Amino acid sequence: MSGTHASDGYPRDRTAILLVDPYNDFLSEGGKLWPRVSELATRFNLLANMRSVLGAARAVPLPVFYVPHHRSEPDDLAHWDHPTPYQMGASRAQVFAKGTWGGEWHPDFLPQPHDILIKEHWGGSGFANTDLDFQLKQKGVTHVILIGLIANTCIETTGRFASELGYHVTLVRDATAAFSEAALHAAHEINGPTYAHRICTTEDLIVLLSARAGN
Amino acid sequence: MSGTHASDGYPRDRTAILLVDPYNDFLSEGGKLWPRVSELATRFNLLANMRSVLGAARAVPLPVFYVPHHRSEPDDLAHWDHPTPYQMGASRAQVFAKGTWGGEWHPDFLPQPHDILIKEHWGGSGFANTDLDFQLKQKGVTHVILIGLIANTCIETTGRFASELGYHVTLVRDATAAFSEAALHAAHEINGPTYAHRICTTEDLIVLLSARAGN
Amino acid sequence: MSGTHASDGYPRDRTAILLVDPYNDFLSEGGKLWPRVSELATRFNLLANMRSVLGAARAVPLPVFYVPHHRSEPDDLAHWDHPTPYQMGASRAQVFAKGTWGGEWHPDFLPQPHDILIKEHWGGSGFANTDLDFQLKQKGVTHVILIGLIANTCIETTGRFASELGYHVTLVRDATAAFSEAALHAAHEINGPTYAHRICTTEDLIVLLSARAGN
Amino acid sequence: MSGTHASDGYPRDRTAILLVDPYNDFLSEGGKLWPRVSELATRFNLLANMRSVLGAARAVPLPVFYVPHHRSEPDDLAHWDHPTPYQMGASRAQVFAKGTWGGEWHPDFLPQPHDILIKEHWGGSGFANTDLDFQLKQKGVTHVILIGLIANTCIETTGRFASELGYHVTLVRDATAAFSEAALHAAHEINGPTYAHRICTTEDLIVLLSARAGN
Repeated sequence: MSGTHASDGYPRDRTAILLVDPYNDFLSEGGKLWPRVSELATRFNLLANMRSVLGAARAVPLPVFYVPHHRSEPDDLAHWDHPTPYQMGASRAQVFAKGTWGGEWHPDFLPQPHDILIKEHWGGSGFANTDLDFQLKQKGVTHVILIGLIANTCIETTGRFASELGYHVTLVRDATAAFSEAALHAAHEINGPTYAHRICTTEDLIVLLSARAGN
Repeated sequence: MSGTHASDGYPRDRTAILLVDPYNDFLSEGGKLWPRVSELATRFNLLANMRSVLGAARAVPLPVFYVPHHRSEPDDLAHWDHPTPYQMGASRAQVFAKGTWGGEWHPDFLPQPHDILIKEHWGGSGFANTDLDFQLKQKGVTHVILIGLIANTCIETTGRFASELGYHVTLVRDATAAFSEAALHAAHEINGPTYAHRICTTEDLIVLLSARAGN
Repeated sequence: MSGTHASDGYPRDRTAILLVDPYNDFLSEGGKLWPRVSELATRFNLLANMRSVLGAARAVPLPVFYVPHHRSEPDDLAHWDHPTPYQMGASRAQVFAKGTWGGEWHPDFLPQPHDILIKEHWGGSGFANTDLDFQLKQKGVTHVILIGLIANTCIETTGRFASELGYHVTLVRDATAAFSEAALHAAHEINGPTYAHRICTTEDLIVLLSARAGN
Repeated sequence: MSGTHASDGYPRDRTAILLVDPYNDFLSEGGKLWPRVSELATRFNLLANMRSVLGAARAVPLPVFYVPHHRSEPDDLAHWDHPTPYQMGASRAQVFAKGTWGGEWHPDFLPQPHDILIKEHWGGSGFANTDLDFQLKQKGVTHVILIGLIANTCIETTGRFASELGYHVTLVRDATAAFSEAALHAAHEINGPTYAHRICTTEDLIVLLSARAGN
């Protein structure tokens, strides 16, 4: 069975990168949430690792899907009966605000010509209320590799959905980050093993992708 | 906005209990997974709390939905290209094996006449690949209260899905359990607040449900 | 059981209007598809009926959800492996083209302050790849009334999805239209009865909505 | 773009047959619904064509997915707030009744060792409330070929869902049937072209499948 041995490769025509929320507010100095992720992001060389994964993927080439969180607008939850407290906090802070620098892509992660931009999601799952599953099917993708932010929220909810929808799911330990070490530990040591097919480092992943590229 | 104040009640005709995996293998002495949950389950009086929540819910009355994990059968994943390592482990151990005592309901949690039995789920989400969302709509339910097992797997994935699907989600700290204290902490202190509307104790919940019943 | 008697009313706090594709390209003289619907639309007084349904709904008030088809852009299907021939035709004709008059709302059907705008759909179902189900849940809606275009494509696919997702579904014979009489007949006489709960006229519907408003 | 030319083949490792509702109640003399389909089924040699498609598919081999409608049980809709009139009719007639001959597979269409049995669906779509999409992903399927019954209900709703979910959809004119000629005409001449990628005969399909098998 695939995905069970560390040495397994990825089917070249069925594998995609899901790039989650590479916004300035998350990844750039001056971003609204950068202060909360900067410690772990810096320690892991998060931006360098994300660039490495994307570079290796584009060399194969594997398709890259942008999976963006909702860009805040004033009063955008006003007519909801029951937003979560977390959504209300994000709305008050206007994270990834539409039409602002914080809601733009970090300059290292601008979409390239063949990248696919998925509709914005309202919560943590890139699949819920969007066309992600549809667009993956249009490319025949069965294996998804998740990078970006945050390990225990958007990455984890998107990963749990992917697994429930029948995809093979890979998490990359150092191509994501979280607000605390405990949250990152929960994502990769406690919860990831219950739904993901592989949890590896950027270095491991690049070897696996290169192996395929060399086939 | 509803669900944001600790004193908020539940809309009587829109609230349901999701009872997740009350199998002998989880909850009964001699069950295959009981050794892994017994420490936390005993410390919290898990079974007594689950009975209390159900008793209070049936007094309102609120509908109770059984949300069962797949009952194992030999070779049931044989034709899958990529089951998760976690699913393969459960299959090898034949947890909740079909036609065995371990796959039967714990005797304190037998379905009552008006309870609704949802189709079995393959992974962690009671919504994925089942009729849970459909059956909730047939009852006009918008608010779900999750009890049962395991806090960071089936309860959490079902809760994350519920939130993404537009439901108001309540987690009950001591009407669930996990394999470790760290896993329970991750479920209720790290991840729950990012998608749930309320995280409370059995005692708090019963006050809220009784308040409604008295209206 | 609700929805089975012609005289049944609608639950006031659970009913919504789904207004499908009220674009100039469909409804206005000069629109790209107006020549194909104009005969039936004129015969039925389609625009007057749509205005009547919306007027009656807003008087209750019932929430109104805009359910828009994808607005065409050049090359928007270029990276799809297998668009349908129908989607390719729409793309070639650039129907509802983004940024053009044809892709704007008909002036009689401009969104009002509390209306809810759903994400654009790629095919025929307003539920697929959008946040329609999520937004309906945020309002506790269980009953949907579909008006707009086209009876046997977007209205029918949205209606079939609604029924499969657990909603109570109403079709309004003369608040929709089609490219041919045979297509309209198929929608309301052959297929509608296999998935919808009620198929009625604008006049019937307004009596039912007014009955509720008078309660 | 694939699927747009009549001569296009099918990707061998991505194509599957969806066999919808091959129950005795539909296909066998003495079945509850056989009188309603027998005229068209006999005229088209429906059973022979279904056998031909399956034979050609198994020769490739392509995976075969059984997509079964809910098997009736007494009072099985009793707790629903709003079943459709159509569902209530089927429940009263107890079509495909559980544990009876009518709810068993027609003897020509018994599952073979590697066939995959999907969960039963409540309405017309084999995808709604079931694990069909999940199981197709586990096989990497992107192209589905629908055969069985009824052309304008379960086949059409399953086909519309498949298209909305991103699959390439093939309908086979004479490997299905309906209750009337008008219903069959609506399915293949009016509605099919708006969501399906190919509508062909059994003979055409077998040529296409054989072409692939010969590669």
